[in-house]
Amino acid sequence: ALEPPTLADARADQERLLSAVGASELPLDVLRELPETLRDGGFRATVTRYDGRPIDVEAADTEGRVWGVAVDVGTSKIIAYLFDLESGRQIDQEALENPQMRFGEDVITRLTQAIHNGRRDDLREMARDGINELLATLCARQAIAPRHLYDMTVVGNTAMHHLALGLSVVGLGGAPFAPALAAPVTLRAGELGFAMNPEAGVHFPPPIAGFVGSDCLAVIAATRLAQTSAPTLAIDIGTNTEIALAHDGRVVVTSCASGPAFEGYQITCGMKAAEGAIERIAIDAQGEPRDLRTIGGREPMGICGSGVVDLLAGLVAAGVVDRGGRVQPHARVRRSADGPGLEYLVTSGPQGDIVFTQHDVRSLQLAKAAIAAGSRLLLAGAGLEPGDVDKIFVAGAFGNELDVHNALAIGLLPAVPRERVAFVGNAAGVGAQMALIDVDERHAMSVLAARLEFLDLATDRGFHEVFTTELGFA
Amino acid sequence: ALEPPTLADARADQERLLSAVGASELPLDVLRELPETLRDGGFRATVTRYDGRPIDVEAADTEGRVWGVAVDVGTSKIIAYLFDLESGRQIDQEALENPQMRFGEDVITRLTQAIHNGRRDDLREMARDGINELLATLCARQAIAPRHLYDMTVVGNTAMHHLALGLSVVGLGGAPFAPALAAPVTLRAGELGFAMNPEAGVHFPPPIAGFVGSDCLAVIAATRLAQTSAPTLAIDIGTNTEIALAHDGRVVVTSCASGPAFEGYQITCGMKAAEGAIERIAIDAQGEPRDLRTIGGREPMGICGSGVVDLLAGLVAAGVVDRGGRVQPHARVRRSADGPGLEYLVTSGPQGDIVFTQHDVRSLQLAKAAIAAGSRLLLAGAGLEPGDVDKIFVAGAFGNELDVHNALAIGLLPAVPRERVAFVGNAAGVGAQMALIDVDERHAMSVLAARLEFLDLATDRGFHEVFTTELGFA
Repeated sequence: ALEPPTLADARADQERLLSAVGASELPLDVLRELPETLRDGGFRATVTRYDGRPIDVEAADTEGRVWGVAVDVGTSKIIAYLFDLESGRQIDQEALENPQMRFGEDVITRLTQAIHNGRRDDLREMARDGINELLATLCARQAIAPRHLYDMTVVGNTAMHHLALGLSVVGLGGAPFAPALAAPVTLRAGELGFAMNPEAGVHFPPPIAGFVGSDCLAVIAATRLAQTSAPTLAIDIGTNTEIALAHDGRVVVTSCASGPAFEGYQITCGMKAAEGAIERIAIDAQGEPRDLRTIGGREPMGICGSGVVDLLAGLVAAGVVDRGGRVQPHARVRRSADGPGLEYLVTSGPQGDIVFTQHDVRSLQLAKAAIAAGSRLLLAGAGLEPGDVDKIFVAGAFGNELDVHNALAIGLLPAVPRERVAFVGNAAGVGAQMALIDVDERHAMSVLAARLEFLDLATDRGFHEVFTTELGFA
Repeated sequence: ALEPPTLADARADQERLLSAVGASELPLDVLRELPETLRDGGFRATVTRYDGRPIDVEAADTEGRVWGVAVDVGTSKIIAYLFDLESGRQIDQEALENPQMRFGEDVITRLTQAIHNGRRDDLREMARDGINELLATLCARQAIAPRHLYDMTVVGNTAMHHLALGLSVVGLGGAPFAPALAAPVTLRAGELGFAMNPEAGVHFPPPIAGFVGSDCLAVIAATRLAQTSAPTLAIDIGTNTEIALAHDGRVVVTSCASGPAFEGYQITCGMKAAEGAIERIAIDAQGEPRDLRTIGGREPMGICGSGVVDLLAGLVAAGVVDRGGRVQPHARVRRSADGPGLEYLVTSGPQGDIVFTQHDVRSLQLAKAAIAAGSRLLLAGAGLEPGDVDKIFVAGAFGNELDVHNALAIGLLPAVPRERVAFVGNAAGVGAQMALIDVDERHAMSVLAARLEFLDLATDRGFHEVFTTELGFA
């Protein structure tokens, strides 16, 4: 509540307001409307601050809540988590396929599009549009004015981070894979074209290296890896898989191009973890499917990541897929209708047969071998065997749950007793949420980033040998 | 010159550059292109800073010069002065009519358009377009890339200041005339849509009060008024006339709505100080024109401010205009062709007769009375008589020169001996130039602004009486 101006006190509106709230400056757009705002509210106003700085002034007492959004920009999927910043509680969440998929399912294709085909701005706009679509859905569903979205954190792998910011990715296109930026940045939402309060801050935690992104940093923060003393692994399985090992006060991270197979992409009947996706399935000793469960209990439409792991582990155990990855003759195995090789009939859904093909098995073998080789080399670098690992956190967009037993069975994870493994879902999203609701955590993540050591598999002489030995099923 | 990245040193491009130049952050647009810029230049680059902060990075050694522009946004005219910021030397200048003239010649009309007709954004865009046109002309003429315009200062009266920034002027529309902003601001050129380097700073020195703008502050700075000890006046004659009195360690300023007559506007054959304008003229004892001189020596097209002062003083002295301002019968006086009342035939130009009408005399009387009353009341408030004034600086867009003798004769200036008066031309522009080339001066002006005292003529009981007595010619 301010005193209105008089002939004896005709101070400027900005000075009148700022001296009352103890600040030094207003953003231009807010300042432009300030005279109207103050007079509309009879010189009562609500001031919202960001990092101490006033970023919004509304007429009278708006009893406004302040909202924030944590965003995980994955290569395949963008997820947004809506928070009430006063209570720190999550209110809602929403996800969609990364619109950049149109320019390639994998990171390398998109980098090529950006560097050689002049598509950098298109890719930036696609990321922005995807985020804005999520914001629009969340705001509509929760009846929130976009103006009242005052904060955002964004994590992603380094390529997604750069493309979302519109940074040139020419440094990421080849060795030595130097990123444009590896520092935390906070930008104005208006500058990025995000459909929030234009003065809202959008915070990007720092990427670690060319192929270890801020999503990996977020996973390390979310799993409190840097605070543990016993050897601990965090594996974030996605199109790129990041693996971090905490051991002896050090945290070493690496990255491998695992492809999107474990997210349900590039699998013949694969799909993302959405309604109708087969998320759990068992294969009995005769190689017959049992206990099929879909997300939402709907009729089966396809198979998501966690279902793919179950299927592969079950078929290997039943001998329908041999240890080299070859599909064997079986009552449910037939010649593939639309390609060479064999396929296993999982079930029939309303849109036709759901099959699991020889090609799918090969994609998963390559992905699994890359991930397993990464873990092996990381452990070897620290002089450790798999059995020395005290705890493994597995993160990734598999769906609601991942059968740890099956993940261990196919060799996706280092061989440790089952109880040492915890599936933590989308830990990168959790890290982004922590940074959103706790500014101290945001700063701590930047400090943590500087501590991390990077193991570059691309220059590791042992990689190809280990990769080859990890292709099969033990 | 930077070391290119290697596998052993794959630091981020930003970090590589900033650690070399000792800074902490790049603007987003510069950062976006940084990987290309560094690689284009073989990791040699030129960094330009603003206030210590890097704002531009160019490939290799550009041997780039840095340019800046000082702008005086007048109600009638916008003037831009181009400077080489390395040498601090003026290179060029250009002026144009303020495009806002289309929405009204005087400030009040434009305020009304902004407040009641929703024209605030239009008026902002007009100011921006006018400035951009000046920048385009200067850049083209001097073969300068707009990207290399790195700094700007803008002064103007409070209404022009607010409209150029796009600030709501609702506070300026009525008593107590509280401005939106009376602090110095520096904004990004990109934010304002100015055709310069988008990261260039655009500095607006502070307005003093609702009707005493940063142009008045610039005049006070340019005339070093605050540093003088003897009573000194600075009078900046324009559509609004600001008058400042330095006396006894204090500086008191006031403002009066004098209209644009002394700038050549709202005068039947008036024109701005451009080629073909009658800038000097004498009237002999018989009331005949003598020694007519036009700007550029061209055939006469109209009369600018300094010519108007000469004409009025000469006609009063010759008795063609009496002391009450009435035009008298004379060989050159005739009934006006396109209006009531008489008119004096000054000369005939290629576009027809150039006349000076009864209506013109009345406009000038009103303007002169407002200005004279302002000076009188300012002096009276300090307990001073006109004769006590040690020095008068007269500023304004009269043309190249103003005949001080004639200005004194018509009572436009307080009655002091002629040698105490100095015509200083566009002193507001000079102040803007000082702030452009000297950052210390910029800070000093902000400090000075806080020292100035404001005398509000609108609430001064004596104003109307003094105004009325000042209408005639003594």
